[in-house]
Amino acid sequence: MDNFRFNAPTEMLFGKGQISNLPEVLSKYGKNVLLAYGGGSIKKNGIYGKIQELLKDYNIVELNGIEPNPRIETVRRGVELCRENDIEVILAVGGGSTIDCSKVVAAGYYYEGDTWDIVIDSSKITNALPIVTVLTLAATGSEMNSGAVISKMDTNEKLGTRANCMSPKTSILDPEYLYTLPAIQTAAGTADIMSHVFENYFKKDKDAFVQDKIAEGLLQTCIKYCPIALKDPANYEARANLMWASSMALNGLTGSGKVGAWSCHPMEHELSAHYDITHGVGLAILTPSWMRYILKDETVDKFVDYAMNVWNLPYNEDKFALANEAIDATENFFKECGIPMTLREVGIDDSKFKEMAEAAVNHGNLQYAYVSLNKEDVYKIFSMCL
Amino acid sequence: MDNFRFNAPTEMLFGKGQISNLPEVLSKYGKNVLLAYGGGSIKKNGIYGKIQELLKDYNIVELNGIEPNPRIETVRRGVELCRENDIEVILAVGGGSTIDCSKVVAAGYYYEGDTWDIVIDSSKITNALPIVTVLTLAATGSEMNSGAVISKMDTNEKLGTRANCMSPKTSILDPEYLYTLPAIQTAAGTADIMSHVFENYFKKDKDAFVQDKIAEGLLQTCIKYCPIALKDPANYEARANLMWASSMALNGLTGSGKVGAWSCHPMEHELSAHYDITHGVGLAILTPSWMRYILKDETVDKFVDYAMNVWNLPYNEDKFALANEAIDATENFFKECGIPMTLREVGIDDSKFKEMAEAAVNHGNLQYAYVSLNKEDVYKIFSMCL
Repeated sequence: MDNFRFNAPTEMLFGKGQISNLPEVLSKYGKNVLLAYGGGSIKKNGIYGKIQELLKDYNIVELNGIEPNPRIETVRRGVELCRENDIEVILAVGGGSTIDCSKVVAAGYYYEGDTWDIVIDSSKITNALPIVTVLTLAATGSEMNSGAVISKMDTNEKLGTRANCMSPKTSILDPEYLYTLPAIQTAAGTADIMSHVFENYFKKDKDAFVQDKIAEGLLQTCIKYCPIALKDPANYEARANLMWASSMALNGLTGSGKVGAWSCHPMEHELSAHYDITHGVGLAILTPSWMRYILKDETVDKFVDYAMNVWNLPYNEDKFALANEAIDATENFFKECGIPMTLREVGIDDSKFKEMAEAAVNHGNLQYAYVSLNKEDVYKIFSMCL
Repeated sequence: MDNFRFNAPTEMLFGKGQISNLPEVLSKYGKNVLLAYGGGSIKKNGIYGKIQELLKDYNIVELNGIEPNPRIETVRRGVELCRENDIEVILAVGGGSTIDCSKVVAAGYYYEGDTWDIVIDSSKITNALPIVTVLTLAATGSEMNSGAVISKMDTNEKLGTRANCMSPKTSILDPEYLYTLPAIQTAAGTADIMSHVFENYFKKDKDAFVQDKIAEGLLQTCIKYCPIALKDPANYEARANLMWASSMALNGLTGSGKVGAWSCHPMEHELSAHYDITHGVGLAILTPSWMRYILKDETVDKFVDYAMNVWNLPYNEDKFALANEAIDATENFFKECGIPMTLREVGIDDSKFKEMAEAAVNHGNLQYAYVSLNKEDVYKIFSMCL
């Protein structure tokens, strides 16, 4: 187990009706609130109205229309709003996109130069406005960590940044808010949760047993509950377990003590940066092909663990057969959840594969991944996904 | 899943040589440090010397001789020392006893009345000095939570208290510090970790799947690595996984969303309060008898999960046979780890069973446990342990 620093200080208020604590939570920071949200689904499902009612004594300024892959222009707009209105706390209501955008707005408030600088170079982040979140999608884990991913479409860049001060102070997780999600968002969100776990589970370290057992448990949670949530959207048990799994998958629990770069996320970030596709869908498409590509003598034992401990597949002397059975199960699972599983289905052809492969290796340091990948490797994996 | 609040804000610095960060960590709080420790093992294993060397520019006042079941008199002495020396931060070096004592010293500093008051009534805790810990035993989880247990031997009371402000700011966990532990402390510490998980795993709630999967993973960790650490005390992988499991078992991960009182801990607290035995040993003795006592139609399915997911026992149509097999495996595991498994072996006879059973029910609210227990039930469980 490699040395590590673990710190997940966000206070998590989980369960039905936790939104009622919002006034008390916000009052610690001030009365001037930036309310950040996306395309307006929170107006349809009643959360927006509830917040207006709870915060009638607060001065609320709105940053709305945050994109599914949040863009730097929106972040800059948020920073301006904070400065013009003496904002004291940011209330992010939505999924990972809204929370990520809010994090960089919060840090951008204290940075004098152009906000894109602190996306490219996190060492320039010195402080951030306090952030409180109300989660409406189980997916990115942003509600309980210090990271954010922002897109700059004119240069086809989608990059991550990170700073302790950007961790939300409090996150409110009410599983009932997931009841009205479109099915594809439930499925893509689950694929995102699972991919976070895969990125940490498939690492060179072999002795982080605690972390790997937590990882296997979170994967079993997704496999058990996503189909239930798709069939029965208002199933509280399913929504609650998926929602809690999303926070647990990327708060440090599965990755602490395991070094190396991630694999599918850097590849997916290129797909989103060039084609603006749903992040979780891109991850689901890439994952089985990536797994098949890296399966070899050095990795097969880990895939055997994955097969037996996650998919409960019976032991098979032929390790590669067992590993492939688990990879097939992964692919079938995503398919059965209704996720389009080829790049063509989401409108991507091979015309930018070379450019995207090179960028993925550069941005993602893929030479340090579980199995080192160069631009030719990534090109081949993209091709397998067509 | 019941509503819950999760907050584990302690920064965890994990791994070889993390002690080197101590000056930087302490410098945030001040130069006047109360160094709290137990019986002196830290002088033998070199940690004390290392700390003196690292903190040569700090003003260090010592609170030493903290007992394995820390006593209120020692807490009072600590509070006095803090006040007399304008202490700004407490450095707790040891296991759960030292950390628990330090927590109540930290809170007692701000309380004007007698410190026992804040043990009996946690609502009287308003503030606490910052606490930094260096962990030397994998057991109680106190390094990453807000609770503390203090004993008052003249009245045979051993009681828990809790306050957010008592959570350590930073905990340093170096698995190498466990290499020189006496075997019985490794074993009893593991029993303590497992008991924390059992207390949360065996609850009435049936839908906290994420929490239960984490629980099963932590139990598997203990079962895998305690025997390795006993046979090969300097096995880093074993020590690292046990140490990380200790923090994960009682930081809220396994208990969030699951309501009800604990069972074995309140019973054990009476044994320790009356006979000053090692907490983990008392828990190991009580656990199999408690499990046998509560096994019935309403609980057997949970024991089947425990049998199959923790002990990897093959499915058996006879659920009770399978459950009993798992309970026997639990008892044998503790025995093979070298823990004395009867009360007689630790010098306890039945003379105080009645008194202790009544106190356990009162202090522990055992009517709200997984299976409700009254004083007659506890008396019978104690008798089964003779």
